[in-house]
Amino acid sequence: MLSEFKEYVTKIEYLNSAMAVLSWDAMVNTPSKGKAYRGEILGFLSGEYYKLITDDKVKVFIDYFNNESNLDDITNAMVKKIEKSYNEIKKIPEDFYIQYTVDASISSAAWEEAKNANDFSIFKPHLEKMVDYKKKFVDYLSFEENKYDTLLDMYEPGITVKKLDEVFSEVRDAIVMLLKKIETSDVSIQTDFFTKYFSKNDQEEFSKFILSKLEYDFISRGRIDESEHPFTTDFGKDDVRITTHYYENDFRSAMFGCIHEGGHAIYEQDISKDLMGTGLAEGTSMGIHESQSRFYENILGRSKEFWSYFYPEAQKKFPQFESITLDQFYKAINKVEPSLIRIEADELTYSLHVIIRYELEKMLINDELKVEDLPTAWNKKYKDYLGVEPSSDADGVLQDMHWSDGSFGYFPSYALGNLYGAQMVKIMEKDIPNLYTQISQGNFSDIHNWLKENVHKHGAVYKPAELIKKITGEELKSEYFINYLNKKYSEIYNLV
Amino acid sequence: MLSEFKEYVTKIEYLNSAMAVLSWDAMVNTPSKGKAYRGEILGFLSGEYYKLITDDKVKVFIDYFNNESNLDDITNAMVKKIEKSYNEIKKIPEDFYIQYTVDASISSAAWEEAKNANDFSIFKPHLEKMVDYKKKFVDYLSFEENKYDTLLDMYEPGITVKKLDEVFSEVRDAIVMLLKKIETSDVSIQTDFFTKYFSKNDQEEFSKFILSKLEYDFISRGRIDESEHPFTTDFGKDDVRITTHYYENDFRSAMFGCIHEGGHAIYEQDISKDLMGTGLAEGTSMGIHESQSRFYENILGRSKEFWSYFYPEAQKKFPQFESITLDQFYKAINKVEPSLIRIEADELTYSLHVIIRYELEKMLINDELKVEDLPTAWNKKYKDYLGVEPSSDADGVLQDMHWSDGSFGYFPSYALGNLYGAQMVKIMEKDIPNLYTQISQGNFSDIHNWLKENVHKHGAVYKPAELIKKITGEELKSEYFINYLNKKYSEIYNLV
Repeated sequence: MLSEFKEYVTKIEYLNSAMAVLSWDAMVNTPSKGKAYRGEILGFLSGEYYKLITDDKVKVFIDYFNNESNLDDITNAMVKKIEKSYNEIKKIPEDFYIQYTVDASISSAAWEEAKNANDFSIFKPHLEKMVDYKKKFVDYLSFEENKYDTLLDMYEPGITVKKLDEVFSEVRDAIVMLLKKIETSDVSIQTDFFTKYFSKNDQEEFSKFILSKLEYDFISRGRIDESEHPFTTDFGKDDVRITTHYYENDFRSAMFGCIHEGGHAIYEQDISKDLMGTGLAEGTSMGIHESQSRFYENILGRSKEFWSYFYPEAQKKFPQFESITLDQFYKAINKVEPSLIRIEADELTYSLHVIIRYELEKMLINDELKVEDLPTAWNKKYKDYLGVEPSSDADGVLQDMHWSDGSFGYFPSYALGNLYGAQMVKIMEKDIPNLYTQISQGNFSDIHNWLKENVHKHGAVYKPAELIKKITGEELKSEYFINYLNKKYSEIYNLV
Repeated sequence: MLSEFKEYVTKIEYLNSAMAVLSWDAMVNTPSKGKAYRGEILGFLSGEYYKLITDDKVKVFIDYFNNESNLDDITNAMVKKIEKSYNEIKKIPEDFYIQYTVDASISSAAWEEAKNANDFSIFKPHLEKMVDYKKKFVDYLSFEENKYDTLLDMYEPGITVKKLDEVFSEVRDAIVMLLKKIETSDVSIQTDFFTKYFSKNDQEEFSKFILSKLEYDFISRGRIDESEHPFTTDFGKDDVRITTHYYENDFRSAMFGCIHEGGHAIYEQDISKDLMGTGLAEGTSMGIHESQSRFYENILGRSKEFWSYFYPEAQKKFPQFESITLDQFYKAINKVEPSLIRIEADELTYSLHVIIRYELEKMLINDELKVEDLPTAWNKKYKDYLGVEPSSDADGVLQDMHWSDGSFGYFPSYALGNLYGAQMVKIMEKDIPNLYTQISQGNFSDIHNWLKENVHKHGAVYKPAELIKKITGEELKSEYFINYLNKKYSEIYNLV
């Protein structure tokens, strides 16, 4: 029965991989007029996916294995994962789901129009619809403590509002306090050298140099392409691709973007081959995925040790940095500047952008905030936490596309990744005593191996909460991330 | 019923397009270690295709429409096409087909090994197997006059050995005679300037310049990439892609390769939108497809008028041609040199390479030649027709991969394309009186439009024989191609 079940799940994986190839190609290669037909093909394949996952056979498999005792961890996780998908899809009426998909696509288009026109009123009726849809999703799927928990569970299985309220409020307060201190600091940081001209070709070569040191195999098991928005995707563990977007007037964007996506890609490349055909050969949650990308991008990639190895190489490649010292460079990539746009935020303020969205969408789903009052609530939170206020909705509530297609519950992953990462690093430091020396020598093998053994190879066998407990012996806590931020920024800004 | 039928056929098209995207990506982008899994996904999708095409529903559609009278051309062709696929697949036992697919892949690998080792004995047992498989295919599908007809019909619906024997023997004799005359010519043609250094970038820009003049839309409805072997593929009529392979020490390869693939691509881009969902939105046969690619590559692309427009541009771009006159250049791209390798052959001798393969595979399928005697027979025909003899099987019978996976019946398309093309041009000359002036002015719109209206837009609505009759009022004949060759090469070589 297990081999039959695996054979069935393998088909689902094949279909998923086929859709991933078509989507990657749509984003990287498809000519403008070919996109409509590509959408039709993807729609057809999604329908086939729906049929496979809701087939009566799936129910037979689930019932059979739920009556078996002594399942091993992997088989157990495999059954639970399929059961969750099956139940979710079965509980949602097909007509409702199709109508939602159609409306989500209309809503996304309206959002784009609204953003370009800087006019929230264009988006408002669509956003109201999306909030309603998601509340109905919760009704269909049911909830225990908080309606929003059901939505969170789609991206971060097992996480709850109760837990997030606790850790996010601690993080929020700590960052806000740190920001106030930084305001009083007399350290001034120069960043103008980042916006000189950096040729695409040079950026590409240097990014590849770093990524190969970090052990992302983009030669025989992956590739790097260009797309409007950077992303990572995979079709089997031996074909994991990242994309980037080069800006020739900014050194930072593609560089840190590549390291970030590289973190996602290394995770996928490291997943155990044995998990193919189980539905578990993927990252266990968006939050754990972000913990890997943000570990590479920030904890490693914005550390002094990292650049004490790479900066001399950067200076060789880029004469633009000739007169800039390592210390200046290090401070420049970590300059704190409260700002309006999430995707341009520095490492410190980034989490605040995410927490604001978390707080707002939680209120929307629980009828504590109306869509019409959203722009005002948005602006107030930016003022309160970051001390800045959008002068237009395009720079405020309209900046991200997530809400336009109803992806409520997704944003927290970005901040959770920071927390998971910092908590893991405390254990990594114990297991690799000369961790920081290794980084400063450009030796990332032990780190990579640690992540592979503790996180990556397990794929989705363990839920995020189980995984973090297994690795650190503790539940998710905010203190490690807060301590990390305090230490790092106190040094940079000479805080007492 | 028709809309239900179209909906069903649309699904088959979606699946075909999905497979085409995955195959294109496998050839252009997939990293080495990702290829095995890609093969698995494609295998799964082929299985889904098999299920769709052999479903009982298809039989219901076929029976229904076969009982309807007064079907329009398109619906009629649509039903006939599906019926053909359905019957073919239903007649071949599934186990037999799967075993054939497996053995074909083993045989291809053996062929590659044999070619590299220059040792026919490695390939021999596999080729024997492939010949046997194809004879069994014929048994399952049945035949009327000649076993080989059944195989021809897979690539060139309706063509027969009887017809090919007639036209190919005429073409063969005419070329052989022309070659003998050329041997006595005192015209000597210099070609060494083609093998100077031509940067990939320059070649790419110049190829794109030509292709855009020829009206292949590779911006909004297609793209040009690189792959080991050039090919054309499409996913819907608005995403038609070609590939090429640049050699920096040869100007000709990528240039004429691009024009050739461009011909295929223009065909696909021009197919009427109304044919989507009918299974007919594709070229009607391999031979007609080759007629378009070879028309663009040879009849246009190796004509004096074509280069009287493009050569001044080529000289601007490539100082390598500075001291070479248009006449020298024109003769150089048309230099006749009997040689051993089909894909490197000049326009004149090319058809002979194909006819040799036709004659040999016809004998193999009809038990008139044993595989063990194939190398000797091959070498004898090269000696007889071309006056050259391979010193090794790698340069002889092992050079092409087609036989290794059992693609008997495919080769004739290449030569048929030449015949169809020359026959069409006689009508085009009447319809566009200033045809050659237009070419020499770099104006290809009337030509393109003529092909679109007469050939391209019809997709697979008409079988090749119907189409050529519809366009030219005559059956396929060899005389137009023979006259074209005689005229062209008599001028170039000053023959009397």
